Amino acid sequence: MSRINVAILGASGYTGSDLIRILINHPNVEIKYLTAEKHAGKQLPEVLPVFTNILDQKLHQLKPESIPDNIDFVFTALPHGTSANIVKYCYEKGMKVVDLGADFRLSYKMYKEWYGEHPCPELLKDAVYGLPELNRTRIKKTKIVANPGCYPESAILPLAPLLKAELIKSNTIIIDSKSGVSGAGRSAELAYNFCEVNEGLKAYKIDEHRHMPEIIEVLSEFSGKKVILNFTPHLIPIDRGILSTIYVDLKKNINTSELISIYEKFYKKEIFIRIMPEGTYPSTHQVRGSNFCDIGAKVIKGRNKAIIVSVIDNLVKGASGQAVQNMNVMMGYKEDTGLNIPPVFP
Amino acid sequence: MSRINVAILGASGYTGSDLIRILINHPNVEIKYLTAEKHAGKQLPEVLPVFTNILDQKLHQLKPESIPDNIDFVFTALPHGTSANIVKYCYEKGMKVVDLGADFRLSYKMYKEWYGEHPCPELLKDAVYGLPELNRTRIKKTKIVANPGCYPESAILPLAPLLKAELIKSNTIIIDSKSGVSGAGRSAELAYNFCEVNEGLKAYKIDEHRHMPEIIEVLSEFSGKKVILNFTPHLIPIDRGILSTIYVDLKKNINTSELISIYEKFYKKEIFIRIMPEGTYPSTHQVRGSNFCDIGAKVIKGRNKAIIVSVIDNLVKGASGQAVQNMNVMMGYKEDTGLNIPPVFP
Amino acid sequence: MSRINVAILGASGYTGSDLIRILINHPNVEIKYLTAEKHAGKQLPEVLPVFTNILDQKLHQLKPESIPDNIDFVFTALPHGTSANIVKYCYEKGMKVVDLGADFRLSYKMYKEWYGEHPCPELLKDAVYGLPELNRTRIKKTKIVANPGCYPESAILPLAPLLKAELIKSNTIIIDSKSGVSGAGRSAELAYNFCEVNEGLKAYKIDEHRHMPEIIEVLSEFSGKKVILNFTPHLIPIDRGILSTIYVDLKKNINTSELISIYEKFYKKEIFIRIMPEGTYPSTHQVRGSNFCDIGAKVIKGRNKAIIVSVIDNLVKGASGQAVQNMNVMMGYKEDTGLNIPPVFP
Amino acid sequence: MSRINVAILGASGYTGSDLIRILINHPNVEIKYLTAEKHAGKQLPEVLPVFTNILDQKLHQLKPESIPDNIDFVFTALPHGTSANIVKYCYEKGMKVVDLGADFRLSYKMYKEWYGEHPCPELLKDAVYGLPELNRTRIKKTKIVANPGCYPESAILPLAPLLKAELIKSNTIIIDSKSGVSGAGRSAELAYNFCEVNEGLKAYKIDEHRHMPEIIEVLSEFSGKKVILNFTPHLIPIDRGILSTIYVDLKKNINTSELISIYEKFYKKEIFIRIMPEGTYPSTHQVRGSNFCDIGAKVIKGRNKAIIVSVIDNLVKGASGQAVQNMNVMMGYKEDTGLNIPPVFP
Repeated sequence: MSRINVAILGASGYTGSDLIRILINHPNVEIKYLTAEKHAGKQLPEVLPVFTNILDQKLHQLKPESIPDNIDFVFTALPHGTSANIVKYCYEKGMKVVDLGADFRLSYKMYKEWYGEHPCPELLKDAVYGLPELNRTRIKKTKIVANPGCYPESAILPLAPLLKAELIKSNTIIIDSKSGVSGAGRSAELAYNFCEVNEGLKAYKIDEHRHMPEIIEVLSEFSGKKVILNFTPHLIPIDRGILSTIYVDLKKNINTSELISIYEKFYKKEIFIRIMPEGTYPSTHQVRGSNFCDIGAKVIKGRNKAIIVSVIDNLVKGASGQAVQNMNVMMGYKEDTGLNIPPVFP
Repeated sequence: MSRINVAILGASGYTGSDLIRILINHPNVEIKYLTAEKHAGKQLPEVLPVFTNILDQKLHQLKPESIPDNIDFVFTALPHGTSANIVKYCYEKGMKVVDLGADFRLSYKMYKEWYGEHPCPELLKDAVYGLPELNRTRIKKTKIVANPGCYPESAILPLAPLLKAELIKSNTIIIDSKSGVSGAGRSAELAYNFCEVNEGLKAYKIDEHRHMPEIIEVLSEFSGKKVILNFTPHLIPIDRGILSTIYVDLKKNINTSELISIYEKFYKKEIFIRIMPEGTYPSTHQVRGSNFCDIGAKVIKGRNKAIIVSVIDNLVKGASGQAVQNMNVMMGYKEDTGLNIPPVFP
Repeated sequence: MSRINVAILGASGYTGSDLIRILINHPNVEIKYLTAEKHAGKQLPEVLPVFTNILDQKLHQLKPESIPDNIDFVFTALPHGTSANIVKYCYEKGMKVVDLGADFRLSYKMYKEWYGEHPCPELLKDAVYGLPELNRTRIKKTKIVANPGCYPESAILPLAPLLKAELIKSNTIIIDSKSGVSGAGRSAELAYNFCEVNEGLKAYKIDEHRHMPEIIEVLSEFSGKKVILNFTPHLIPIDRGILSTIYVDLKKNINTSELISIYEKFYKKEIFIRIMPEGTYPSTHQVRGSNFCDIGAKVIKGRNKAIIVSVIDNLVKGASGQAVQNMNVMMGYKEDTGLNIPPVFP
Repeated sequence: MSRINVAILGASGYTGSDLIRILINHPNVEIKYLTAEKHAGKQLPEVLPVFTNILDQKLHQLKPESIPDNIDFVFTALPHGTSANIVKYCYEKGMKVVDLGADFRLSYKMYKEWYGEHPCPELLKDAVYGLPELNRTRIKKTKIVANPGCYPESAILPLAPLLKAELIKSNTIIIDSKSGVSGAGRSAELAYNFCEVNEGLKAYKIDEHRHMPEIIEVLSEFSGKKVILNFTPHLIPIDRGILSTIYVDLKKNINTSELISIYEKFYKKEIFIRIMPEGTYPSTHQVRGSNFCDIGAKVIKGRNKAIIVSVIDNLVKGASGQAVQNMNVMMGYKEDTGLNIPPVFP
């Protein structure tokens, strides 16, 4: 089978590293070009010894014009604001792109409000939000995919079916999310020093995290309702995993079993969504290293309330796995190609 | 100064152990008698090497009649259902008791609903719920204190002032709590095996944890309102610490600064409650090993919502420290005697 | 391609679970039969939710006569003493077996000294120690493989080349090993409760761990020298990983670069052994989830001493991955079939 | 009782923070002056929220001339090379100093070899190495104490009695040390990012760590023998704690019980040294937060080998607790004043 040539821009971070882990066994992919600003000139295993004897490639500087012409597909795992112009360059060269950053996730207006002036607004109309479970058809046709944020992934997947079914009030949603530390990236900051994080629990950026507008916009567009919600992210001392506990007000009187049925039906054909049996709730343990999003649910009797628990691996379904899934859709490959990686437990 | 003779029943668990850690330096206390069912006959340091050269006492079997007559004060750190009759025995012998279990925390009716028939209902009227910040006067006069549960401690302290001030709706409260593993006790269960917990996040007993009725009853009685709430506990891979994120609907239009003022005013004289400055939220890091409960708060503009974050060390303010604080109140000692233990960070 | 039918006896522990994780993607294998004593009758995902939608098979009771006749290959991941007779049963039925327990690792004499009377001594002569890097030829021909212990794996691989080359004294070796907690198995014991392990470090069974005679016997036989050594295992609060720091006395005056060359030469054709460049030492991070054993080395100038550091994932190269590698050798498959799983970092 | 005025230079790191934790309850001490280069101008609780309502003091810039004249005692917790001249300034002002850095631990010659030119060599003769268990008398008389490094503390205390008794060969010692992450300081470095450390094990600076010459010099001087040893430090994902496993060659034929007796006798009057009973080895758990050094030992029968295990909290006996103990000796206070802090477990 012929393979496509792939470039990963920003290969030395946790997201880039997990992309390599997944793509290395993808039968349709040849990893051809890697960049890593801080480590340009080094070999990949010097920076990520995990890849010793697996992928001994050079890390290049991030210059669009140095991207070889024979690259077919580009993943950008770069800080926000950095990728927009590079995406444009690749796009104009005819390459397909999945951008794992935030540059193409929001509308122009929302981006401006939360990040400032958009570096490349003319491209926004061509970019598609990359959540195949909700908008597979549009992803198939686009050349630029905005890969979802990790928190949004964990919130949108459990909420979309309920909003679509008009089962819940769209303006009283509460999302209480707990994330492992790799979500913060591979950076030298005191706040992420081992001793500052280990054995601690904290909430941060309450109702002001940049993933909040993303959740709101995507859910509003998908459901046709004005979605209003609270979003509280927490930092938890684990490497990988997001668990979101979601509180919703039901508009209809249903029980837990019926609620679970709604999920099972909505996601019946989706291989990466697993619905837990009644009475059980997922742990991040059960998705680590894999592209699954697992969902459990409970209705509070007599109160028209439901509590939903979702888990993902923030680096996989929340980033690199999702990116590969998007690539598969864009390229017309079977959607789980290269993604049949069972979770690692313990 | 004369000292009281203290017995700790259930000395080999995490709660009993932390009681010893605190009482060992309490100037008014002589630890005289320890029991530990599974380890009867051993010396304390064999079971808890931390106490080598610190407290080399024998662990006794749990028989009420073996408790020496010269004991003045008893702490019971026993499984629920076990302590009631022992508390009764001690009480009738004239000893004062703080029960760290669940036997005297609920009303007769609520206990029956959540635990079954009460082993000793006649004593319920004499027992006082031990949260001095809310009901110091009653604790001073009683001989039996029911020490609060750890989750309730983390939920009641931040909610009581708001309910009392009629600032929030009493029937839409959501409590999303995250607890370290020591809250589950020192037990040999697969669910708490290191690999089953480490690097995982999970919710459990959603809206059916036995600490929920305790929160409801205490807050309802304190505020004179019928309190209705959701309570979702989560297990987090840290040793010590509970963080509760609480979502409330405001009945008045106030801002964050005003909300914080309400807390500062309400807890002005309380040495163990610390209110965080606007824009900061507490981490469990900052209370570990200490008797503090730290509270941060934020009002969501234009939505009459507020989000409160509280942290405690579940073994200290959530158990043993609270028990010593109660003892201090009951005995007329300065309330922070023996409790001026700064948090340990990292 | 035709597939072999595989049974895993003891499927619900960490070793059994990791076998399933690996075999699920093995192109020559059909997992046909699972047993799990404590969970007989349940479906695998009830006990290991990681396998939801991946392998929804029933867990059977462990009765040899219930193993279906169409099973070609059996993995036994059972407590020592339990597997011997089951291995015999399978062997006589014509099935090939890899025993992940300790029953066939030692000589009759050594087994008796460390474990007691052997349950099935007549089979010992047919069983081959399963470390292909040292004795591939014998493994190819046998029907019973004794899979190495995890500590021995981490000690034998770095020591064998040095002993073979007569480079080090065989009677002054010191092995200081540090292991993650999964090595202790999936069991409900207080000693492995999260809080008993987390944030602690301890040595245990100093010079009396049952893996010590295994290291001694295997190295003595391989090198033809009487090997004498010290072995100190330590328990470290991580899920997966063994790091062994090994101190040896050199018989020749060589430098670090020469020492590393010896390793590179010895393991030149071995895909699962990676030798670190001079000046770098491996972390368990870089092998997690994979079948690699990484080795770093340093000569102490002027003192004829060398220090070797090896790392493995105790559940993979130290157990299940090694077992699959042995199966591949026994069945004549390419040795890395199903084992091209990159490490998961972080 | 009159109190001394104390300054802590470098108050915002883990060592400075733990000094404050200990000194805050020291009956003879008034904390008067704090510096923190990066945080000058802020209040302590802004940088270390643990101290909210406990010590609300300003953090000053590090300028010797700004140290108030009424300071009696100074602790310097500064990077090496930084403290020497400040120590000199304080010393000449008549203040007593404990330097927690490395500037006064080594001889002139050794310092030059490992760190470069000494910034203040004329003061070396006045500085005393601060390990009261070995040289209390000299500490009593000096005004400058060089507080030991954390690794040396964990190695020297278990080795000194054996060398003094001429029980072991002085040139074949192997020290395999495992340290928690706080030993690396409170710094923003990628190597100490949570995900780079968590769930990993690694050796580093094998036989080239700067604590090695300190161990060699102190033991050589104390024993009058030329000590030669190997020292391998390891980084372990815990906050606090060092465990050193030490391998020695015995010169006499003794058994474990006799070896333990030697320790008990040597450290009979030392309150901070605890010797474990035969057959048990200490965990870092049992010293966390406290000033204890716990030691366990085993003789390997028939081989004239012994293995010693020591544990300390690297921030307490390995830094701040040791510093306070030294202050107590220098000031003539009871040696455990302020240090009767039981370990925190779990």
